[in-house]
Amino acid sequence: MSFSDSLLLRNVRPLGAAPVDLLVTGDRIAAAGVALPAPAGCVVEEGGGALLLPGLVEGHTHLDKTLWGMDWYRNEVGTRLIDKIDNERAFREASRHDAAAQSLALAKDFLALGTTRLRTHVDVDTQAGLRHLDGVMRTRSTLEDLQQIQIVAFPQSGLLRRPGTAELLDDAMARGADVLGGLDPCAIDGDPVRSLDTLFGIAERRGCPLDIHLHEPGPMGAFSLELILDRAAALGMHGRVAISHGFCLGELPERERDLLLARMAKLDVALITSAPPSRNVPPLLACRQAGVTVLGGNDGIRDTWSPYGSPDMLERAMLIGMRYNLRRDDELDIALDCVTHAGARGCGFASYGLAAGDRADLVLVQAQTVAQAVVARPQRRLVVAGGRIVARDNVLLPHAVPA
Amino acid sequence: MSFSDSLLLRNVRPLGAAPVDLLVTGDRIAAAGVALPAPAGCVVEEGGGALLLPGLVEGHTHLDKTLWGMDWYRNEVGTRLIDKIDNERAFREASRHDAAAQSLALAKDFLALGTTRLRTHVDVDTQAGLRHLDGVMRTRSTLEDLQQIQIVAFPQSGLLRRPGTAELLDDAMARGADVLGGLDPCAIDGDPVRSLDTLFGIAERRGCPLDIHLHEPGPMGAFSLELILDRAAALGMHGRVAISHGFCLGELPERERDLLLARMAKLDVALITSAPPSRNVPPLLACRQAGVTVLGGNDGIRDTWSPYGSPDMLERAMLIGMRYNLRRDDELDIALDCVTHAGARGCGFASYGLAAGDRADLVLVQAQTVAQAVVARPQRRLVVAGGRIVARDNVLLPHAVPA
Repeated sequence: MSFSDSLLLRNVRPLGAAPVDLLVTGDRIAAAGVALPAPAGCVVEEGGGALLLPGLVEGHTHLDKTLWGMDWYRNEVGTRLIDKIDNERAFREASRHDAAAQSLALAKDFLALGTTRLRTHVDVDTQAGLRHLDGVMRTRSTLEDLQQIQIVAFPQSGLLRRPGTAELLDDAMARGADVLGGLDPCAIDGDPVRSLDTLFGIAERRGCPLDIHLHEPGPMGAFSLELILDRAAALGMHGRVAISHGFCLGELPERERDLLLARMAKLDVALITSAPPSRNVPPLLACRQAGVTVLGGNDGIRDTWSPYGSPDMLERAMLIGMRYNLRRDDELDIALDCVTHAGARGCGFASYGLAAGDRADLVLVQAQTVAQAVVARPQRRLVVAGGRIVARDNVLLPHAVPA
Repeated sequence: MSFSDSLLLRNVRPLGAAPVDLLVTGDRIAAAGVALPAPAGCVVEEGGGALLLPGLVEGHTHLDKTLWGMDWYRNEVGTRLIDKIDNERAFREASRHDAAAQSLALAKDFLALGTTRLRTHVDVDTQAGLRHLDGVMRTRSTLEDLQQIQIVAFPQSGLLRRPGTAELLDDAMARGADVLGGLDPCAIDGDPVRSLDTLFGIAERRGCPLDIHLHEPGPMGAFSLELILDRAAALGMHGRVAISHGFCLGELPERERDLLLARMAKLDVALITSAPPSRNVPPLLACRQAGVTVLGGNDGIRDTWSPYGSPDMLERAMLIGMRYNLRRDDELDIALDCVTHAGARGCGFASYGLAAGDRADLVLVQAQTVAQAVVARPQRRLVVAGGRIVARDNVLLPHAVPA
């Protein structure tokens, strides 16, 4: 890690553009230009014409659940959503799963691979209480200068199904969660109006943004989405509501879907997708055309739900590209956008980008074009987080992260 | 590369089973057992409890088309199948694309990552003639002791659309191609009966197996598939016909699909899939249950068609797992099967496996279970091909491959 106050990256190509030098002062990008002079005492890093990306953005993961780096978990879980929910709660209770240690292990690997902003859901339920939240808040605090972590207080076991959860969510927001989470108001809670009224009630009282998991299919999902949009409009929550998954948008007749997308765009409701290849997914290009911000995320990584996922957001961009059959170079730019600019916009991460004044979160890779970076997922030659060099060649530098 | 005649792998776990030693003599597995004695002069390799996999199998790729390792190709191609076909033929002619050099570069990377058997389609058309075939035959010959390459003579530009192609395919079989390829008899050739009669006529005359790309959707694909199965039955081609893609099987009503699957199983017609996330795909588990062998492949890798794909067949197994939502450990065994045993069976690669007498094609990875090997795609610690150590840690040893 460099403690010098300034850093000059020489000869790098921002998103594939012509080579420039980039000057970083403190935690900010100070200037970009050709043949910038190095201030006295400045650390100079030769980029060698490498491709420069802004720090990558993970829009939807579950740091608190991961078994990353642990012994292999043999998955023998049933196929229904509720099987997975109940199995996980029981497993974590029995194993005393350590959300602090596990979230830190995974967040560090995200950082080593260039992810400098990350939104994570954290389970809040009447069995674990706020234990997982406390663990992930510790990780957020450990990494605060390097990786911006947004915590969503998430009622994974349902909001109404287990009485006392609403109060816990309220406590979670008071305790320091950043975003309030919701989950399938029909399919899980069984009482969509009361569920959403309760959820939006907390959001209104706490003045916090919302991120709602909506797995519900077709017409049921559309029904819930309408209820969500009604409430977002009534409370004036423009730009403060996100829908995770939104599978129903991949299953509705085009006309009905487009009316929903138009409402979402008007309320600036973002859509967060892991682009799962085995499900119907919201149509990426149609959503963007309608003006809806679409961003990408892993969802869970190596947990009791699923063995898949990785802290490599270029891999997620590739999977998004494959899911939507993006083959042309101009289309692969969109795949990257889902884990960079659109990610930051949809989550509300400020000072994001490669312009002077933006926070200096930077990734260098050996690639000729953005498209190549997405499909080849090359080693991260250099990762700069908050102005400091924290990783080289996919490995965190010693002492990059506070002990 | 080891030139010793015998090799003892100590302490390895075949597909996750209890640790054994594995003795290799010449190009064969001689014995597997606990605490095997090392013959005099035997090279001993300590496995350290690593997971042992049989050499991986690529069931469908296009070595002749790849731009692997070349300057980035900016894809600005249209979206129709025929756009891609015409664009590629023109590009290769203009660039004098070198199928020999390119196929060798990619095949070597396949080998370094543990793929020891590989089926590749090679374009045969009236513009390039047999030029691409000659190139890939050179690669097949260069690697013959290490990697078994099956060449499919493939009429990428259609069999009937460009007169003279049938004669070229016939020449290709005489020249040394292993398998005769076909392509969408309705959608591309526009005359399914004449197209398939011509194709099966060559197969009958040459006594060669068939591998037919069938992209045609729903009822059109089912129609073509019936015509194919009729001819396979009439000519007694049991176990000698494979269908690549077969997207229609993912789009038909269950009853109709199951009748087709039953016919395929009866004729032992294999199904080869790249499990594309953006298309309807044949249902893996239903196919297996019906008795149809399903195997996996990349399809093209980094070519003018698509920027995706990689010579890592564990990654392909992961993508198959994700496409079919295989999450349980017992399901991930199936994903691996698609790039190992089912792959070898479907392509007809002989002496495949981890038993005494099988060809010694072996891969060691640091993983606790098969499921972990699929989702984590760990480095190939050791690759043995035809009894020789050819790669360590994803890198070919110097002189492993003849110059």
